[in-house]
Amino acid sequence: MKRARLYQQLAPEAREQIGLSVINRVICALILLASLTAILETEPTLRDRAPGLFMALETLFVALFTAEYSLRLYAVGEDPRYRGLKGRLRYIFSFWALVDLIAILPYFLGFLSHNNAFLLRLLRLTRMLRLARLGRFSQAWSALADALKSRSHELWLSAGVAGLLLLFSSCCLYVVEAAAQPEAFGSVPRALWWSIATLTTVGYGDVTPMTALGKLFAGLTAVAGIGLIAMPTGILAAAFSDEFQNKRGK
Amino acid sequence: MKRARLYQQLAPEAREQIGLSVINRVICALILLASLTAILETEPTLRDRAPGLFMALETLFVALFTAEYSLRLYAVGEDPRYRGLKGRLRYIFSFWALVDLIAILPYFLGFLSHNNAFLLRLLRLTRMLRLARLGRFSQAWSALADALKSRSHELWLSAGVAGLLLLFSSCCLYVVEAAAQPEAFGSVPRALWWSIATLTTVGYGDVTPMTALGKLFAGLTAVAGIGLIAMPTGILAAAFSDEFQNKRGK
Amino acid sequence: MKRARLYQQLAPEAREQIGLSVINRVICALILLASLTAILETEPTLRDRAPGLFMALETLFVALFTAEYSLRLYAVGEDPRYRGLKGRLRYIFSFWALVDLIAILPYFLGFLSHNNAFLLRLLRLTRMLRLARLGRFSQAWSALADALKSRSHELWLSAGVAGLLLLFSSCCLYVVEAAAQPEAFGSVPRALWWSIATLTTVGYGDVTPMTALGKLFAGLTAVAGIGLIAMPTGILAAAFSDEFQNKRGK
Amino acid sequence: MKRARLYQQLAPEAREQIGLSVINRVICALILLASLTAILETEPTLRDRAPGLFMALETLFVALFTAEYSLRLYAVGEDPRYRGLKGRLRYIFSFWALVDLIAILPYFLGFLSHNNAFLLRLLRLTRMLRLARLGRFSQAWSALADALKSRSHELWLSAGVAGLLLLFSSCCLYVVEAAAQPEAFGSVPRALWWSIATLTTVGYGDVTPMTALGKLFAGLTAVAGIGLIAMPTGILAAAFSDEFQNKRGK
Repeated sequence: MKRARLYQQLAPEAREQIGLSVINRVICALILLASLTAILETEPTLRDRAPGLFMALETLFVALFTAEYSLRLYAVGEDPRYRGLKGRLRYIFSFWALVDLIAILPYFLGFLSHNNAFLLRLLRLTRMLRLARLGRFSQAWSALADALKSRSHELWLSAGVAGLLLLFSSCCLYVVEAAAQPEAFGSVPRALWWSIATLTTVGYGDVTPMTALGKLFAGLTAVAGIGLIAMPTGILAAAFSDEFQNKRGK
Repeated sequence: MKRARLYQQLAPEAREQIGLSVINRVICALILLASLTAILETEPTLRDRAPGLFMALETLFVALFTAEYSLRLYAVGEDPRYRGLKGRLRYIFSFWALVDLIAILPYFLGFLSHNNAFLLRLLRLTRMLRLARLGRFSQAWSALADALKSRSHELWLSAGVAGLLLLFSSCCLYVVEAAAQPEAFGSVPRALWWSIATLTTVGYGDVTPMTALGKLFAGLTAVAGIGLIAMPTGILAAAFSDEFQNKRGK
Repeated sequence: MKRARLYQQLAPEAREQIGLSVINRVICALILLASLTAILETEPTLRDRAPGLFMALETLFVALFTAEYSLRLYAVGEDPRYRGLKGRLRYIFSFWALVDLIAILPYFLGFLSHNNAFLLRLLRLTRMLRLARLGRFSQAWSALADALKSRSHELWLSAGVAGLLLLFSSCCLYVVEAAAQPEAFGSVPRALWWSIATLTTVGYGDVTPMTALGKLFAGLTAVAGIGLIAMPTGILAAAFSDEFQNKRGK
Repeated sequence: MKRARLYQQLAPEAREQIGLSVINRVICALILLASLTAILETEPTLRDRAPGLFMALETLFVALFTAEYSLRLYAVGEDPRYRGLKGRLRYIFSFWALVDLIAILPYFLGFLSHNNAFLLRLLRLTRMLRLARLGRFSQAWSALADALKSRSHELWLSAGVAGLLLLFSSCCLYVVEAAAQPEAFGSVPRALWWSIATLTTVGYGDVTPMTALGKLFAGLTAVAGIGLIAMPTGILAAAFSDEFQNKRGK
């Protein structure tokens, strides 16, 4: 009886009510806190001020996540698929259980001394996605995903056109500007850096064409960049409009 | 009789006709002028040229707003909720009356000597929102607000995806660029500055990746930035389209 | 008989067929050429290479436009409103006739020696708008204008919100950054320059916040900038969608 | 019998099944690889490391494309239009056959020693467009093309307005900034470079106005830039929405 209630609390799939259970909300908050700690720890000025604090916090979070992992492993027995020792092993190697494990294992293996271990810790954030997909956001999630899927061909096509445009524009600038600025436009891959910054209208300005012809092509690229934004936006708007009307019609 | 007419003129809610009354229009103009004065006063070259002028203008505006406040306090007696001394006290502590008070009180308390007092003065601008919500714009306001509310889940979801993207991109650049540019990419919070400028396609260019791998990730981030713009735009477009058709259907 | 045919050719309103008449097409081309000449003449390296050429071209264009103006003045007699001497005077002071006159008068008054006379010459471009509004583009023009008009309240409202956002963001950065960068953020009007470049996602990068708090507010401003683009785009998309369906329904 | 099957495999138009044949997929992959090689070869650091490798790869690709060309020339005899010697000649001078030829001819003519020969090699990429237009993407392609065509007048009109805006803004900045920055704003064509970077919200920041009036006009231009993005995006969104509903209605 007790395990059944625990399972209901832990496994979002098993829940009848809409929204996350209290335990899962607490876990969400913990994940956010743990990720925030991992992010702040990368800042040297903060780490040097309180080196012990970050280590203590990490130990605390790992202890809590280990407890959560054990509870999940225990409670999952409610699911017929994961019953018994064999079932538990199958659960351990299921996708989300592995993600859960990756979030705590590095700590025990002593990987944390390594500088990039925080990447493993941030993997915990992906666990939020799993939770977010349930409860109140599940309908919104499926509406957006359905809209994207129904127009995937149009979106891929506009991505393909954008790719050709990107290549074409960087080839043009390579031909025109290579002599004037060999460092920035001396090859097509180098010109790509400028090209992508212009087509996406980011425009860092660290590299800009200097010749008159280069500026002409750059202007055309910038104008094409508006099309590059307008195209997928228009497709998405139409797809969402369709999807919302479909959903309401049902 | 006279108080009733004054109340009709001052309280936009009490008005039957569409649009703002003459008094409220004058007050709107005064708010704009007072805010403009407060903004221009922050500019040292202007302040030094005519220090007395700005002080005189502020005194004039505060006098007018004090008169307005007194009139409102007198006229609000028409509203059964705010009748009598107890009612007036309740009115004084209502949200919009407090905003009105904050706009004039600092002057009398002598806060204006403080440099940031202009922030309090700009609070007056929020009073325009209250007026704008009425009259001719009320329908447009509710249409936009309803559309935003009806798709709030989709918008929050895309905000969440954008947040993860932001974090993911700054983590990538921290890992790749930290060694080459410790000042700009030496920690995830530092990399966030670059990341947000790129994902929103602002692209200041004060910080740009230098390694080939960093540029690759930066390019992917810039492309993802287009999705970040296209997603909410598409959702809003579909929501507005729905809303406008609903409104007409009624 | 002859004047009637000339009037049919010159006045786009009088035409029954769709599209521009041959004469008006020639005039359009002349306007474009004259404007291009005026633009290129501003470039010192080009002007110095052939100073006589530009003067000669301008004389030619003015001669042709004077001929056109005289012909229009003669042919407009077909219109009952502009018949007789009094009618002609009324025509001369009508809006488009004045625009036509402004395009040629400065030449005869010897204003061309002045450096900014090219602005008057570029006014000729506005004449193209008048022609473009007719013929094939008239339907597209009215569809776009109707859509903009039908949602003008929503558009003004989002412009108002954008304006408040702009002000709010520049006030925040003035408070936070004024001490660190008095030159760029020393007053609200100065901070506005940064603020508008960020909110519109232009992002020149000539001025960027340096303090941690300033960067935080800047990041929020940049994110708000996406809303600033998404809002009017969504409204326009919905308005156009409505308009196109209306037009087809008829 | 054999030639008929080969033709079915090679000519995408002749295929009954949806999607590309195995041969055409292999050719697509080869085109991508050959283009990637051509792009990477422009990078001096890579070319100098393995100069023989790139030459060998190019020889291999040209050999394969020559074989493909010969096979197509042989198989096209299945098409009644291109039967016999005269038909083959007609095929050779058809558009896509010429594109195929241009992809291999420069190699045999020894043009590859020239630096810009890679442009000819990248022409091969356009061959992918021909293949992409078939199979699975054909419906998406026609949907997007139809939507663009049905609203071409509105799109041209907004392009025209954008063009006038561009001109107007660069004229304003030329008048205002020419004295302060003759290098960047000394003529309208020069100011155009700044103007296009601002209106498309790219914002390199290599050239920015310095005078107060220049900054005012620049701010207005940046705001107009949002309209420049919102306008075509809105038109496209409405056009796609229309098109998708039409397609489903059928």
